[in-house]
Amino acid sequence: MTLTKQGTEKIRVFALGGVGEIGKNMYVIEVDNDLIVIDSGLMFPDDDMLGVDIVIPDISYLEENRERVRGIILTHGHEDHIGALPYVIRKLNVPIYGTKLTLGIVKAKLAENSLDKVVDLRIIDCKSQILVGTTTVNFFRTNHSIPDSVGVSIETIQGSIVHTGDFKFDQNPVDGIYADIGKMATIGEKGVLCLLSDSTNAERPGVSMSETVVGQGIKEAFYGAKGRIIVATFASNLHRVQQVINAAVAVNRKVTVSGRSMVKIVSIAMELGYLKVDLDTLIKVEDIDKYSDDEITILTTGSQGEPMSALSRMAKGAHRQITIKPSDTIIISATPIPGNEKSVTKIVDLLFRTGAEVIFGQKNVHTTGHGCQEELKLMLNLMRPKYFIPIHGEYRMQHEHCKIAKTCGVKDDHVFLIEKGDVIEFTNGEAKLSGKVPSGNILIDGIGVGDVGNIVLRDRRLLSKDGILVVVVTLNKASNAIISGPDIISRGFVYVRESEQLLEEAGVLVTQTLTKCMVENVNEWSLLKSNIRDVLSRYLFEKTRRRPMILPIIMEV
Amino acid sequence: MTLTKQGTEKIRVFALGGVGEIGKNMYVIEVDNDLIVIDSGLMFPDDDMLGVDIVIPDISYLEENRERVRGIILTHGHEDHIGALPYVIRKLNVPIYGTKLTLGIVKAKLAENSLDKVVDLRIIDCKSQILVGTTTVNFFRTNHSIPDSVGVSIETIQGSIVHTGDFKFDQNPVDGIYADIGKMATIGEKGVLCLLSDSTNAERPGVSMSETVVGQGIKEAFYGAKGRIIVATFASNLHRVQQVINAAVAVNRKVTVSGRSMVKIVSIAMELGYLKVDLDTLIKVEDIDKYSDDEITILTTGSQGEPMSALSRMAKGAHRQITIKPSDTIIISATPIPGNEKSVTKIVDLLFRTGAEVIFGQKNVHTTGHGCQEELKLMLNLMRPKYFIPIHGEYRMQHEHCKIAKTCGVKDDHVFLIEKGDVIEFTNGEAKLSGKVPSGNILIDGIGVGDVGNIVLRDRRLLSKDGILVVVVTLNKASNAIISGPDIISRGFVYVRESEQLLEEAGVLVTQTLTKCMVENVNEWSLLKSNIRDVLSRYLFEKTRRRPMILPIIMEV
Repeated sequence: MTLTKQGTEKIRVFALGGVGEIGKNMYVIEVDNDLIVIDSGLMFPDDDMLGVDIVIPDISYLEENRERVRGIILTHGHEDHIGALPYVIRKLNVPIYGTKLTLGIVKAKLAENSLDKVVDLRIIDCKSQILVGTTTVNFFRTNHSIPDSVGVSIETIQGSIVHTGDFKFDQNPVDGIYADIGKMATIGEKGVLCLLSDSTNAERPGVSMSETVVGQGIKEAFYGAKGRIIVATFASNLHRVQQVINAAVAVNRKVTVSGRSMVKIVSIAMELGYLKVDLDTLIKVEDIDKYSDDEITILTTGSQGEPMSALSRMAKGAHRQITIKPSDTIIISATPIPGNEKSVTKIVDLLFRTGAEVIFGQKNVHTTGHGCQEELKLMLNLMRPKYFIPIHGEYRMQHEHCKIAKTCGVKDDHVFLIEKGDVIEFTNGEAKLSGKVPSGNILIDGIGVGDVGNIVLRDRRLLSKDGILVVVVTLNKASNAIISGPDIISRGFVYVRESEQLLEEAGVLVTQTLTKCMVENVNEWSLLKSNIRDVLSRYLFEKTRRRPMILPIIMEV
Repeated sequence: MTLTKQGTEKIRVFALGGVGEIGKNMYVIEVDNDLIVIDSGLMFPDDDMLGVDIVIPDISYLEENRERVRGIILTHGHEDHIGALPYVIRKLNVPIYGTKLTLGIVKAKLAENSLDKVVDLRIIDCKSQILVGTTTVNFFRTNHSIPDSVGVSIETIQGSIVHTGDFKFDQNPVDGIYADIGKMATIGEKGVLCLLSDSTNAERPGVSMSETVVGQGIKEAFYGAKGRIIVATFASNLHRVQQVINAAVAVNRKVTVSGRSMVKIVSIAMELGYLKVDLDTLIKVEDIDKYSDDEITILTTGSQGEPMSALSRMAKGAHRQITIKPSDTIIISATPIPGNEKSVTKIVDLLFRTGAEVIFGQKNVHTTGHGCQEELKLMLNLMRPKYFIPIHGEYRMQHEHCKIAKTCGVKDDHVFLIEKGDVIEFTNGEAKLSGKVPSGNILIDGIGVGDVGNIVLRDRRLLSKDGILVVVVTLNKASNAIISGPDIISRGFVYVRESEQLLEEAGVLVTQTLTKCMVENVNEWSLLKSNIRDVLSRYLFEKTRRRPMILPIIMEV
């Protein structure tokens, strides 16, 4: 089965990640026999996913239908859109489509995993028209907080399925590259069956501030600074990086780059032509002392308070090369991502304590990469979709975006607020909710993919709350006697030294319990253990109001 | 030594909590032999204080100087100002001064700890002038997000030491009770040696919104609602509670109160006359089904996403009496306290999923209880202090408040940005930084006060990240033989079922290590254990990139 007449063409659209959550973006468009994946992102773990490094989508549906998966299209190079690739590609090595910068970043990422040689990377640009399987795909340029972002239009007999990627409309883009409004309008005029659009800022009225305004804010801060200037921002925000470099050049400062991810992305961007900087302007971190303070700019990571980042290390006085001076000016050119507020302000307070000038939380040194309500309306009005699916956002953002779509003329019952795995099926130009595909979180901890699940997490939560008490006893069953122990070992429960009496009494209780069991001829191990657990648990809760995990170990000789 | 001439009077001012942090407020003013404590609050634990319930100030300085402690003055009834009392009072049973509502709340709190009979509670009002020891203390009324809040003026020969408590200036207070601007001006005119002022909103320009505006926002939401209305707010914000009740009455709705702390505080406030409500308006939760939905208002707790709160239970469909209906309107009349953003939005998203109308994050249904920059300036200009100490705030807020004080005419070197324990000493009207007193965090976990410290927390952090592996072996040293084991038990590390091979190989490694040790006659237990730990740790990190805690247990028979 290849192309079919409108009468029988079946389209299925669903999300494996990215709806009901921020991050882990992965969308699937099935046009008859062609299964096309858009984005393949990761998410950072929630607070209750203890010890987990990253979270990726469950792709078991894709694996089960591997012979129909025609390719992965990437909208841009952010981790929440490309971060799951090293894991996905190991199970599903299909062609990957993306713009030059996006694939540049992907290639470096895959190289770290020794996967760059085995993948089929295919560069597209916003003018490309490609066939993925037998399905035609077009692109349109958007503005976002990373260059070279695109939206995707998948052409079907029933009309286009349009996926916006992350977008905003910046009327003064830093690189002079505007969003493709004309092309969007053309796609809209040809007929959009369904629009999947970015909901991140659906709760925010008005329009997002232009990146260029941020450049002016940064420049002003540069004019006012007397000593060194340290700017912390997202490494991938190359527009921002460019503007920092421009500000530095304007006041005759050199720029040094600190922080692993910043160094990496700056080098990729320079190689591919996405950063314009005189080699003369860049200096090595080791060389900053060769210049006077007012000739130095340090561009760094750590704007989210990441504990191991360059900025954190500077704040704690633990950076090998850079010690903050009271004459320094530190610009945090970012806002905390929800959940990071406390770690960011902790670092900011440490920076304030150094006596340096800290510019933080001021509106003109950062802007969002996502369109606000008026921009979302503009997208809807350009595309004039028959059906609408809000993506990229937590539930309430999707909910708000649905309301916006209705104000732009999408019919009430043509709006689908989908959750992960919900399938919307289109036939004869009509849509309906049609079942579910498997979806969920795969947790990555160290090298392990998916070997940390609910039981392990439950144990980690218990352990983190009140610690563990290990009780070891050696029994001789033949003689019904305790040969050695009980030894009680506490980790994360109480200070042993200050709780000697408590632990001693606990030991006495264990001995009594075991003796009683043996007298009563209860000698099944599982019963002995659960008796010990019950008795100790009750005793410790009464004495401390805590419930440590209790692990009885009975050795038999 | 009692009262002295100006020439020799010595005043010492310091914070045992509340500076460099939000919460745990406790300030000490020493006037010669009189030691006066202002507030005695708790703080909720940081994310890295795993398993800890609450944090209180280290009061060892007060204990060492117990014969000079004359009393504790409370500025208002919030937990971050009174929450440490049950612990402090057990060690230091001195008179407690506070307004009627504040002491009403304190009394209920102490009663829960069976302490209400043994304490000496002394009611003051904003007109009181009292002697604490031999020192005269006056009060002035402020506006805040709980009624009956006061500022404190401690009169000394060198001038007044003024402590604002938490405050804002509300030009349209809900209860018609205005801040005592005239009295503040009078205190200022008599001469303020030092002002300690609330820095919580020092980063926010302008003025805070009046609580009355919030009342209008709530009323509008009430007019628009068709089904039941559920309002979540802070229990102690009795102005807010009053306005919800007023709105309900205005549209002929009954009010039911749900959530332990809300029930408690509403009953205290009604008893003491701080809430005006017809008994006829209040109904029991059990009776809500006797009324039609548009006659019901449910006032509840949980605006901070607390997992066990009434609102959380409703959102999860786990509330015994209240099940959310799609026709309900839910008003979150609060903003998330920093650090609570994610837990709040998680609950809000669950509420959205029920299909109910959710009003969240809208500016007109909540306001702050703390004055913004223009109000801080007004306080400074009324008091005209010689010296200034910013309190109630994290470092950057105190820093901002210092800048504000300087714009209001306080001399640059008369501003002290103190950290916990820093002592400012005043003699002959001149101030200087004069050493430090002990200060710190006392962690409370269950019944234990201070028995959880760095080692226990470090263990909990390790356990929470990668779990624990317990390795048990029984040796016979005489014969140099392993009698039983190694048994390996994993908790919070990996699923045992999916990692059988890994754990089996780990067991083999342990056996090899022990055998080698015994051959080499290494038979000191600590050495055996550290060898096992090293070998296993290396092996597991290589295989999993995780570092579980490893607990080797060697039994000897």
